[in-house]
Amino acid sequence: MRIGILTGGGDCPGLNAAIRAVVRRAILEYDDHVLGVKNGWEGLVDSDVEPLSLYSISGILPKGGTILGSSRRNPLKLGDGMQRIMDNFNKYEFDALVIIGGDDTLGIANKLAEKGLKYVGIPKTIDNDLLGTDMSFGFDTAVSIATEAIDRLHTTAESHHRVIVVEVMGRYSGAIATAAGLAGGADFILVPETPFSFEDMASQLMARHKHGKNFSVVVVAAGAKPEGFDKPISKIDKTDEFGHPLVGGVGEVVAREVETRTGMETRVVVLGSIQRGGSPTAFDRVLATRLGVHAADMVHAGRFGYMAALHGTEITEAPVVEAIRTTRTVNPQIYETAKVFFG
Amino acid sequence: MRIGILTGGGDCPGLNAAIRAVVRRAILEYDDHVLGVKNGWEGLVDSDVEPLSLYSISGILPKGGTILGSSRRNPLKLGDGMQRIMDNFNKYEFDALVIIGGDDTLGIANKLAEKGLKYVGIPKTIDNDLLGTDMSFGFDTAVSIATEAIDRLHTTAESHHRVIVVEVMGRYSGAIATAAGLAGGADFILVPETPFSFEDMASQLMARHKHGKNFSVVVVAAGAKPEGFDKPISKIDKTDEFGHPLVGGVGEVVAREVETRTGMETRVVVLGSIQRGGSPTAFDRVLATRLGVHAADMVHAGRFGYMAALHGTEITEAPVVEAIRTTRTVNPQIYETAKVFFG
Amino acid sequence: MRIGILTGGGDCPGLNAAIRAVVRRAILEYDDHVLGVKNGWEGLVDSDVEPLSLYSISGILPKGGTILGSSRRNPLKLGDGMQRIMDNFNKYEFDALVIIGGDDTLGIANKLAEKGLKYVGIPKTIDNDLLGTDMSFGFDTAVSIATEAIDRLHTTAESHHRVIVVEVMGRYSGAIATAAGLAGGADFILVPETPFSFEDMASQLMARHKHGKNFSVVVVAAGAKPEGFDKPISKIDKTDEFGHPLVGGVGEVVAREVETRTGMETRVVVLGSIQRGGSPTAFDRVLATRLGVHAADMVHAGRFGYMAALHGTEITEAPVVEAIRTTRTVNPQIYETAKVFFG
Amino acid sequence: MRIGILTGGGDCPGLNAAIRAVVRRAILEYDDHVLGVKNGWEGLVDSDVEPLSLYSISGILPKGGTILGSSRRNPLKLGDGMQRIMDNFNKYEFDALVIIGGDDTLGIANKLAEKGLKYVGIPKTIDNDLLGTDMSFGFDTAVSIATEAIDRLHTTAESHHRVIVVEVMGRYSGAIATAAGLAGGADFILVPETPFSFEDMASQLMARHKHGKNFSVVVVAAGAKPEGFDKPISKIDKTDEFGHPLVGGVGEVVAREVETRTGMETRVVVLGSIQRGGSPTAFDRVLATRLGVHAADMVHAGRFGYMAALHGTEITEAPVVEAIRTTRTVNPQIYETAKVFFG
Repeated sequence: MRIGILTGGGDCPGLNAAIRAVVRRAILEYDDHVLGVKNGWEGLVDSDVEPLSLYSISGILPKGGTILGSSRRNPLKLGDGMQRIMDNFNKYEFDALVIIGGDDTLGIANKLAEKGLKYVGIPKTIDNDLLGTDMSFGFDTAVSIATEAIDRLHTTAESHHRVIVVEVMGRYSGAIATAAGLAGGADFILVPETPFSFEDMASQLMARHKHGKNFSVVVVAAGAKPEGFDKPISKIDKTDEFGHPLVGGVGEVVAREVETRTGMETRVVVLGSIQRGGSPTAFDRVLATRLGVHAADMVHAGRFGYMAALHGTEITEAPVVEAIRTTRTVNPQIYETAKVFFG
Repeated sequence: MRIGILTGGGDCPGLNAAIRAVVRRAILEYDDHVLGVKNGWEGLVDSDVEPLSLYSISGILPKGGTILGSSRRNPLKLGDGMQRIMDNFNKYEFDALVIIGGDDTLGIANKLAEKGLKYVGIPKTIDNDLLGTDMSFGFDTAVSIATEAIDRLHTTAESHHRVIVVEVMGRYSGAIATAAGLAGGADFILVPETPFSFEDMASQLMARHKHGKNFSVVVVAAGAKPEGFDKPISKIDKTDEFGHPLVGGVGEVVAREVETRTGMETRVVVLGSIQRGGSPTAFDRVLATRLGVHAADMVHAGRFGYMAALHGTEITEAPVVEAIRTTRTVNPQIYETAKVFFG
Repeated sequence: MRIGILTGGGDCPGLNAAIRAVVRRAILEYDDHVLGVKNGWEGLVDSDVEPLSLYSISGILPKGGTILGSSRRNPLKLGDGMQRIMDNFNKYEFDALVIIGGDDTLGIANKLAEKGLKYVGIPKTIDNDLLGTDMSFGFDTAVSIATEAIDRLHTTAESHHRVIVVEVMGRYSGAIATAAGLAGGADFILVPETPFSFEDMASQLMARHKHGKNFSVVVVAAGAKPEGFDKPISKIDKTDEFGHPLVGGVGEVVAREVETRTGMETRVVVLGSIQRGGSPTAFDRVLATRLGVHAADMVHAGRFGYMAALHGTEITEAPVVEAIRTTRTVNPQIYETAKVFFG
Repeated sequence: MRIGILTGGGDCPGLNAAIRAVVRRAILEYDDHVLGVKNGWEGLVDSDVEPLSLYSISGILPKGGTILGSSRRNPLKLGDGMQRIMDNFNKYEFDALVIIGGDDTLGIANKLAEKGLKYVGIPKTIDNDLLGTDMSFGFDTAVSIATEAIDRLHTTAESHHRVIVVEVMGRYSGAIATAAGLAGGADFILVPETPFSFEDMASQLMARHKHGKNFSVVVVAAGAKPEGFDKPISKIDKTDEFGHPLVGGVGEVVAREVETRTGMETRVVVLGSIQRGGSPTAFDRVLATRLGVHAADMVHAGRFGYMAALHGTEITEAPVVEAIRTTRTVNPQIYETAKVFFG
């Protein structure tokens, strides 16, 4: 068979492990011809495709990012984008594609399937906000990086009797904030799923202070919303003295409120992109590899429109339509557990 | 209620996280009186018990080991050991114990339950060889440490065109060897569950060599057995060319066989205790904390003889008798996936 | 003798290692009575002092922060602050203080010496901007953390064909930016010591782009200044929709200029406090311990007004007045080396 | 000019950083033609040489090992080895070689210089046992890895009330053992430079035990010698209670003696090759890069027979003959500092 592999959306530790697994399984088990599509859907719009051999994937397992490149460009917004993808799918004589992506990327694949594109999916979301699988690779790495940062910030908070507010990724899901906050021993965690009141947060921190703990660490997901606000605080329309627009993330807003309401010296750290880069954890390498091998098998079993998924301890399959139906929110059982350690 | 906590068997990253979770939940939610039993069952045999407060558990989340101490001493082998435990259980007026341990420790708890001891279990096995739960804490940390070591050894193997044999933990289960080997890109993995032939291994490594890869990394579980042997290799009566006695571990035996059969320069590294020490990964901290909070709830729900367990994404409960029935072996699906990358 | 130890200024990995070394040397070698002054000079202004024993320092070697607490409050600005310090110095019958701090903290010690305070210094600056010693502890840890972040960001930059701008610490010195940039393979490094032109930077990045490298990492010290500006860009007087002031660091300004001038998608990451927290590197633990042991010896040799210092491979002594005379700038030989890898 | 680069002896983190620096400086500053010699001197004996471009060195900075390969084969022991090297040196029309190696590799270069070979050296020794430079790259990485292992082992020692003996690299020098032992808080450090008595060691550990510290970590260099022995212990003719032969390394011997003399449960961990593999620390990347750039400059300045070296904060030059004269031993000032923390 002729198989193409494509990685779409934001990069995520484990993408290379998944690519390597698909290629190796396809070549060694099935003697497939494998092609890499460059930069997400863009490579199929612009005919940017290259052959992948065992040599291409040598040594990529521990590497972050994706050797295929990625992009967030949406072919639906490019006039004849969808048609050009189908034309190229046929021109390159693909029997099937393995699509590694989140809800956007898989959603497009799903739309193209109606036009005849055959594909198998591999779920990819650093935020763990995709339904249909217990966990996605990249998430464990992001949580590990954020936890290590929180560990470090704890010693500064304690030495200087400060509150440190750590803003982590998670525009729609509080999964990273909750897991990293729990693992890092956070004293308060703010997530998009649960509106929070500045009042409550401040009073819990003050209570902690009264019990002799004169420092705190607050973890806040990028998409957390204060009570009464109906959208995340992410951009504020202001410009600086040069006329450039200014960013004002939720972390900064929370820090200011804490300082104002508690009188405690407060600092904010926005972790940003470091959460999605670099070498994947062992957990993510194993998960990505298992999903990749299984996806190659699914192609040969004709399981089109399905994605490889983790259920319990096993790799199984789930319909892509189910995965992209809606965003998965943070596991309430875990968030309730995290609350045991608040204040 | 008056609750005791006890950690038994080999130490394991996440024990302190679990202790902290039980104590915090018990005190804040239930206003319990919590006591720590020192050094496993020994503390109940010898009346070595101390109160645990919120202050006792402050800052222990990221720490390896167990603040309660542990021991492998078996009270069954101590004349009146079992009776003294029951006497102390009654003397201290415990309503229940939370027992954090593997099959040995939980097995004793199970025996004591017949005499009236009330307990709730938390599974602890660094080898992930306990039934009844999808995963135990400590395992992810051990796999991470072993994977990091394999990553490091890869660069030496490649620079010197060597085979490096890495012996990892796992007397009865190949779970660590398989996961770390998979994550580290091992070219061969030897586990206790599958007898291996030196012949096969050597020919696979030679084949790899012929394809231009003049180095290899072999991961071997401490309990792996060559074909024809019916027990693990732990000591071997051989002398070297100078008449000096030769080391006994399976890693060294495998290394010698590789060198003899392939003619490639070979080195062995035995990771040993570093796999079980130090700060737990974020994953293990989250898992241990969730199990600990749930165990405290189970005590109050009277779920004696059960242990907190991970199933899929949720913490649930499993009967301890089921967990200790037999040793869990490596997940065959994962080992089959690892084999895709052999040679 | 009665010795006090005080840590002042921003926290820094290695402070606890230094405290432990002073205490252990003083007690075991000299049978001194050692007291810890809490929260920098504040503890001497407010009589907040506690005894330090071998037990107090047990297990603190690998920990970040300072068990004594720190503060940036300047006693010179507190009416009778200086007098209260001298009163307490006499009240507690100190024979000498060991002052662990940067130019501010040591500068105050120097002023107090004129009033009769006896002290020995240990240099502390995470930015490595103190004269009189080859290196200070904390710097190596900060550089390591920043380098690890740059490593991670590289994979994202490469996968998405982006420019990533990393803002690191260094208000007056480019030492962290230069070392971390060099170690992380940065394509451009902006330091306070050398004014830079946006024009030059953009053209170098474009040249790199033309050679097929469609991604770049730029490291910028917090105090870097664009050509024509006479002060660092650190605060811009704007407020958000709630009337809160907004921060606009140099990293953000650089990112916007890169994007505008090159047309390449650009992201900024501000590492902030994570660079100064957490467990010190082995290098910093060794350096801090050596300085601490030597400082205790200096107290007994009556070397007041001097600080322990690293020269080449040896710990020696340097007059504090020399160390605080002016700020040490980045080693020009290292910055020139870093430039070899620009573009 | 036509320049060759060669890496000899055991691999060492930072080799790739040094290669990259030489190549980049030589090409960009001097427009040199650069060739890589494969597998140490072997490549010049066997004509195994390949061109190095800017492309060859892209992305190698953070990687362990050496892209050129290495070997320990000594051309002096190969009949006409030395002549073949000179023939190839002339055949490839090299103007000079940059030799990255320890005393063996540099010693051969020095011998070949008498026959007309022109070379500039870069010191490489993971053990930091080379004279003429304050420090060599690789050492800091080895110490970091060993320290991290000791940190991990501490938690196990403490939880199980054990003595853990950690054997680290250092056949002739105790530099790694001393630095890692100091950084890891070891309770005893055994080095080749100072004969030790089992009696003393045991009584110090017992004294510690009496003060309530019922666990210890002992660090021992591979080449440490007990008092009365005139050579390192590497193989020992003993059998255990079952008649099985016993392992030979000094770590195991020390562990047995500790257990016998103190009655404390003891374990040994031999770190082995993991100390020399994997990504270099930021410190080593900076040092290796600085030495590499300087070595390229030295070639053009005709500084043959010299090596780039670190003195204080500057890169300077030292005659190779001085560096290989004798082995550098552990800095006595550091070892004395480490002793402050014994027991």
